[in-house]
Amino acid sequence: MDIGMIEAAAGRLQGVALRTPLLNSPFLDRIAGRRVWVKAECLQHTGSFKLRGGWSAVSALPIPQRARGVIAISSGNHAQGVAFAASRHAAPCVIVMPSDAPRLKIDNTRAYGAEVVLYDRATGDREAIGAALAEERGLTMIRPYDEPQVIAGQGTVGLEIAAQAAEHGVSRAQVLVPCGGGGLTSGIALALEARAPGLKARPVEPVGFDDARRSLASGRIERNTRTTGSICDSIVTPAPGELTFPIMARLCAPGLAITDDEAMAAMALAFARLHVVIEPGGAAALAAALFHPDEIEGDDVIVVASGGNVDPALFSRALERFG
Amino acid sequence: MDIGMIEAAAGRLQGVALRTPLLNSPFLDRIAGRRVWVKAECLQHTGSFKLRGGWSAVSALPIPQRARGVIAISSGNHAQGVAFAASRHAAPCVIVMPSDAPRLKIDNTRAYGAEVVLYDRATGDREAIGAALAEERGLTMIRPYDEPQVIAGQGTVGLEIAAQAAEHGVSRAQVLVPCGGGGLTSGIALALEARAPGLKARPVEPVGFDDARRSLASGRIERNTRTTGSICDSIVTPAPGELTFPIMARLCAPGLAITDDEAMAAMALAFARLHVVIEPGGAAALAAALFHPDEIEGDDVIVVASGGNVDPALFSRALERFG
Repeated sequence: MDIGMIEAAAGRLQGVALRTPLLNSPFLDRIAGRRVWVKAECLQHTGSFKLRGGWSAVSALPIPQRARGVIAISSGNHAQGVAFAASRHAAPCVIVMPSDAPRLKIDNTRAYGAEVVLYDRATGDREAIGAALAEERGLTMIRPYDEPQVIAGQGTVGLEIAAQAAEHGVSRAQVLVPCGGGGLTSGIALALEARAPGLKARPVEPVGFDDARRSLASGRIERNTRTTGSICDSIVTPAPGELTFPIMARLCAPGLAITDDEAMAAMALAFARLHVVIEPGGAAALAAALFHPDEIEGDDVIVVASGGNVDPALFSRALERFG
Repeated sequence: MDIGMIEAAAGRLQGVALRTPLLNSPFLDRIAGRRVWVKAECLQHTGSFKLRGGWSAVSALPIPQRARGVIAISSGNHAQGVAFAASRHAAPCVIVMPSDAPRLKIDNTRAYGAEVVLYDRATGDREAIGAALAEERGLTMIRPYDEPQVIAGQGTVGLEIAAQAAEHGVSRAQVLVPCGGGGLTSGIALALEARAPGLKARPVEPVGFDDARRSLASGRIERNTRTTGSICDSIVTPAPGELTFPIMARLCAPGLAITDDEAMAAMALAFARLHVVIEPGGAAALAAALFHPDEIEGDDVIVVASGGNVDPALFSRALERFG
C-alpha cells in the first residue's frame, strides 16, 4: 500500500466518482467552537464513498478475471458500490445479503444490475456461501475493507481533502472519519501522509462499538463484544482489518466515540445548515466535531460525511427530536 | 445586461460562492425517461443561489456607498444572501420582514449580522417602510430580482452549468429553473446564450402562480391573482420583473407548471436518490423533469435545485407521503 496505488485509483475514478464538495456553515462553526469542514461523500454516486473502493477494486482486475465476475458480501453501501462498478464494466456481479435486509436495499442493489443471493441469517454462514459461489462460478471476492485496491479507492477521498483544504488555506487540522473496518480511515491517512502531512486522520465510532479506538489505545486488534444495537449500522464491524489496523496504528491519532443521539443531532444539523442527507453512521464524525470539541485540537476540523443512505422514517425521527 | 457583467460577477464571487455539483442518479433518469442533471444550489452558502445575487450587488457598490449600508425587503432566501454579503463586506445591513415570519428565519438573518426591522403585514406597507429607512439612513436598496447586478450574480449559475454540462458531454438540453421574479431564470438564460447556446432555459412555477408562463405565452407581463396558497412560497411573486421579463421573452422556451404534490414528491426523491435537501419551491424544476416528461425535449434535461431552506416538519411530511 502506497500513495502510488491511491493516485492510480484516482486516475481510474476520473469521470466516475464525483469530486464531492467541502461544505461549511458559520452555524456549525459556532457550535463546534472552530471551523468545521464537511467532506460530503453522502453526495457520491450510490450514496457513499464505497463507490470509490468498489470501482477501484473492480477496475484493477485483469480483464479476463473481471469478465468472469465479482462477488461481495454486504447488505449495505459496499454492495451498491461493487454492483455499480461491476455493471459499468459489464462484469457479472453477485451480492450475498441476509434475507431480512431491507427491501429497498435489495431492490437498489438489483437495480444496479447485481444478482442478489439471499441467505438466512439464523442458519446460514455468509462467508461459506460466498466462498462456495466464488469457487463454483470463478468469481473474484471484493472484500469491504481488507483489500488493498479498496483501501486505495477510499484513499482518493484523502487526496481530495488535501487539495480542498489547501484551497481554503487549511494546512493543519484533524480529519475525523466514520470508521467501520478502517478502509476509509486508513486510505485517507495514507493519502494525507503523502499529500498533506499537517492533516491527521482520526477514526470515529459509536460508543460500545469502538474497536478501532480501543485497538489504537492498546496497540493490537481489539474486537467488539457485539455487532448490533447501534443506529450507526454502516460503521459497526467486529474489529479493524488485518491490513487497515497497522496503517491506522502508524498514522492515526486517537479514536473518538459518539452516541446514537449525537449522530441523530448531527444529522438534523446537517439537514438545517448544510442541506445534505447523512445516514447515522455517516454522521459520526460530524457529531464528534460538534459535540466533543474538547477532544479535538486546532482552529479547523475536517469531517467526512461518509454516506447518505438512510431510511426516511429514521431521518424524520432525527428531525423531530433534534430539528 | 450582458455576459460581461455576469463574468465580472463570477470574478467577485470567486472563493465565496461554492461551485455546486451537478448531481445525477440512474433512478431519477428512469423516472424521467431521460438523463436528469441536478445543479444543487441548495448546497450553496446560506442555502440558496440568492447568495450569488446578493454578493454581486453588494460587492459592485462603490466603497463609500457600501459603507453607508444596504437594505432589503425579504422574509426568505434573499434576506440571508444580502445579510451574508453585507456582513462579509463589513457593511451595515437592514432587512425588512413581516413580524409573523418564522422565528428561525428572523434568527438566521440576525445571525448573519443584519438588523431585522419587523412590520405588521396587516397594517404596514413594506415598500414604504423600506424606502423611508433607506432615505433616512442613506442605505442602498438591494432588490431581489429587478436589479442588474443581482441578475448578473444569479447568472453565474448559468456559467457553471455551461461548463459542467460540457464536462459531461451535454451540449443540447433544456435547463429548467424554479422561477419567482425571474432573476435566476433570466441570468441563467443570458449566460447560456453566450456560453452554451445549445442549452435553453425554461421557467418552472407552481400551478396557479404561473405568471411567467402566462407572460411568455401572451408576450406581456401577466400578474398572479394571489400570492399565497402554495407550499412553493420561495418562488411565488406577483409578476415577472420589468428587467427580467424582456430577457426571458427573448431567450426562454415556454414555461412549465407543477403542483404542490409534485414538488413534495421531488423533494422525497432527491432525499432518497441524491441525498440533498431541497425546499418546495427549489424542487419545482426537478418535479417538472420527473413528472412532466412529455413537455420536455431531448435526451438530457438539466434542472436547478435552487434552495434548501425548508421547515423540518414539512420535509418529514414529504418523506412520509412520498418517501
